[in-house]
Amino acid sequence: MATQYSDLEKAINTLVSNFHAASSDNRPTLKVDEFKNLLSSQLPTLVKSDTFGEVLKQIGVKDGEGISFKHFWSLIQNLATSQHGLLSHEKLSKCTCLLL
Amino acid sequence: MATQYSDLEKAINTLVSNFHAASSDNRPTLKVDEFKNLLSSQLPTLVKSDTFGEVLKQIGVKDGEGISFKHFWSLIQNLATSQHGLLSHEKLSKCTCLLL
Repeated sequence: MATQYSDLEKAINTLVSNFHAASSDNRPTLKVDEFKNLLSSQLPTLVKSDTFGEVLKQIGVKDGEGISFKHFWSLIQNLATSQHGLLSHEKLSKCTCLLL
Repeated sequence: MATQYSDLEKAINTLVSNFHAASSDNRPTLKVDEFKNLLSSQLPTLVKSDTFGEVLKQIGVKDGEGISFKHFWSLIQNLATSQHGLLSHEKLSKCTCLLL
């Protein structure tokens, strides 16, 4: 199939594929270690020092729970919203983002 | 700055930049025509025939209202969730997505 995808479609696909690729056994949720590996390679700023536990808390992952696509998406949404705020030159005084 | 960004970071940036680039005057919301142009070039399936009005309704845009980043993000989230469902081989009987 030689379908040509747009940049936006490719970007959505990259986000989804990254979540899937992080699972070793194709289960619907990632183990904490799998999620940590994903963040280490793709969002290294977020797993620096002791911020990883904060990230899990921010996206609502409870102790012993797997990380669902919904959790993952909360993180992406936070990052995109922060990025959007930066590009819009909005006031950043309320910003609680870890990455930007 | 020669910072190397990961695929995931680039994907987030692509989504945000596309929204910004669609605005002719850098306002926080897009005019309906600007949003339609964005979809035409980046998500052509969504503006085919008479589905564009449906899309606006789905993401909660009211008559005469501009399209905010939050509206745009609802759309991206819908598409990503559908894409995730497809990759997960989940049952699609409930799927109401327009794209996939």
